[in-house]
Amino acid sequence: MNLQPLEDRIVVKPAESEETTASGLVIPDTAKEKPQQGEVLAVGPGRFGDDNDRIPMDISVGDTVVYSKYGGTEITIDGEDLLILNARDVLAIRK
Amino acid sequence: MNLQPLEDRIVVKPAESEETTASGLVIPDTAKEKPQQGEVLAVGPGRFGDDNDRIPMDISVGDTVVYSKYGGTEITIDGEDLLILNARDVLAIRK
Amino acid sequence: MNLQPLEDRIVVKPAESEETTASGLVIPDTAKEKPQQGEVLAVGPGRFGDDNDRIPMDISVGDTVVYSKYGGTEITIDGEDLLILNARDVLAIRK
Amino acid sequence: MNLQPLEDRIVVKPAESEETTASGLVIPDTAKEKPQQGEVLAVGPGRFGDDNDRIPMDISVGDTVVYSKYGGTEITIDGEDLLILNARDVLAIRK
Amino acid sequence: MNLQPLEDRIVVKPAESEETTASGLVIPDTAKEKPQQGEVLAVGPGRFGDDNDRIPMDISVGDTVVYSKYGGTEITIDGEDLLILNARDVLAIRK
Amino acid sequence: MNLQPLEDRIVVKPAESEETTASGLVIPDTAKEKPQQGEVLAVGPGRFGDDNDRIPMDISVGDTVVYSKYGGTEITIDGEDLLILNARDVLAIRK
Amino acid sequence: MNLQPLEDRIVVKPAESEETTASGLVIPDTAKEKPQQGEVLAVGPGRFGDDNDRIPMDISVGDTVVYSKYGGTEITIDGEDLLILNARDVLAIRK
Repeated sequence: MNLQPLEDRIVVKPAESEETTASGLVIPDTAKEKPQQGEVLAVGPGRFGDDNDRIPMDISVGDTVVYSKYGGTEITIDGEDLLILNARDVLAIRK
Repeated sequence: MNLQPLEDRIVVKPAESEETTASGLVIPDTAKEKPQQGEVLAVGPGRFGDDNDRIPMDISVGDTVVYSKYGGTEITIDGEDLLILNARDVLAIRK
Repeated sequence: MNLQPLEDRIVVKPAESEETTASGLVIPDTAKEKPQQGEVLAVGPGRFGDDNDRIPMDISVGDTVVYSKYGGTEITIDGEDLLILNARDVLAIRK
Repeated sequence: MNLQPLEDRIVVKPAESEETTASGLVIPDTAKEKPQQGEVLAVGPGRFGDDNDRIPMDISVGDTVVYSKYGGTEITIDGEDLLILNARDVLAIRK
Repeated sequence: MNLQPLEDRIVVKPAESEETTASGLVIPDTAKEKPQQGEVLAVGPGRFGDDNDRIPMDISVGDTVVYSKYGGTEITIDGEDLLILNARDVLAIRK
Repeated sequence: MNLQPLEDRIVVKPAESEETTASGLVIPDTAKEKPQQGEVLAVGPGRFGDDNDRIPMDISVGDTVVYSKYGGTEITIDGEDLLILNARDVLAIRK
Repeated sequence: MNLQPLEDRIVVKPAESEETTASGLVIPDTAKEKPQQGEVLAVGPGRFGDDNDRIPMDISVGDTVVYSKYGGTEITIDGEDLLILNARDVLAIRK
């Protein structure tokens, strides 16, 4: 993927949501919860703070991030469903 | 739990709410009040202030915090129900 | 009470509202006005200003404060009904 | 009156509104316009500006101020109807 | 008129609106457009900027100002209908 | 025209919109799109920034500006229909 | 095209959206998704930050940008459909 996010945005590949429940039922597509976790593919350079220096990013490429459910913009690049998120929509990093 | 909150967020394990009233009645699940207290499991590094330094956090891991009822994002990690809260949604620390 | 408010919040014990009117009528609980005065039990360390220093608090433990009617969060700690108020919801101090 | 307003608030005693019109009609209580002028009884120390210094107050005790009609919080202290106003709700001083 | 506006407010005497149209029709009072021009009677000292200095006013007593139609607070002082405007509601000065 | 805009406002004379379409149809007045281009007649001195210096204006008298469709305040001065625009409502300059 | 955007705005030529689907169906005009990618034709000088210096632009003429679906103002200049976007509506640059 060749997408460079600007300011404090990141590009995330959402994790696949489970297609069957524990008891083996297949969940139809519309009933699945939107994923809230994903892998970071690209990180912007940071936004400019009040003193016109960039604020460093707390997120790195390869991190697994937990993000708020309704944040970000969905985009399809070369057939891949990606999410462009603002860093402030990322709640935590899984370790 | 291996979850690192970003900026001024914290991860809280909500306290169990009482399942019986003083007179011994069992409260059904939907009538229980949402807990407003919990234990802090992880603390973010603090958000960047106007001068691009991080503002120190007043909350530490292990604190019992009182937080506003409707704040935060609920998340289930490894079967555990947790809450990611913004530090400004924490009203006070119990001592 | 062992509750430490954060930033510029304070813990207030609302003053008892009168249970009988001047003419001796008992006022039922729902008709009573919410109290607008109370005693300060605990004071936060102050919030961080733009230069990352704490702004000093104008309120001290023991003050009787007048606060806006709908401000604050009610909380019951050890059977005591308290109010966690933001310092900016305090209008004046009685002397 | 012993009420010390905080930050940039002031305590005002609203001027009596006229109870009869020019032609001698008595105006019933609900038809009277809320007063828009009053005498300043107490002045707060000023709020903290961005550099953590207090911004000086342009209003002094004894001033007659003109204030916006719906501003402020009404309070009754020792049987006296007073108004706690924010300095920015004061439009002008009569001289 | 003895009215001293505070901060960046000004006192304006609205210009009379025309009572007859070009063709001589008398316009009833409710159909007249609210005036958008007026003469400046008093000017405040300016509001405090972020560095706690007053920002100088671009408007002087005697200026004819054009102001936005719905801005300001109407006030009647000694039988005179005046308008207290915020300087930022003034669009331009006629010369 | 003798109108001096304040702060970062400008006075614009909107360009005439076409009264006939390419095929020669006359467009009735209500169907015409509001003009989005115009000539700058006067430019304000710039608004005060956070350090109490005026921010220089990027627009000069005589420029043809493209502005957002619903911005500005319409005003008729000496029979001329003008528009007082905020500089931030100007999208681009035609060259 | 001779259009100079102001502050942190850019002029973008939206990419043509596909007129037939993979299976060869012609998509009627109203069913087509609005393009979300385009080529940058002109870049503003940057907006003024808090210290009255211009914040440098992360976008250059010739870049292919991905922008949020509902951002920007459509404008037709010399028969060409263009989009004036705010730099903060640009999510990422394709490389």
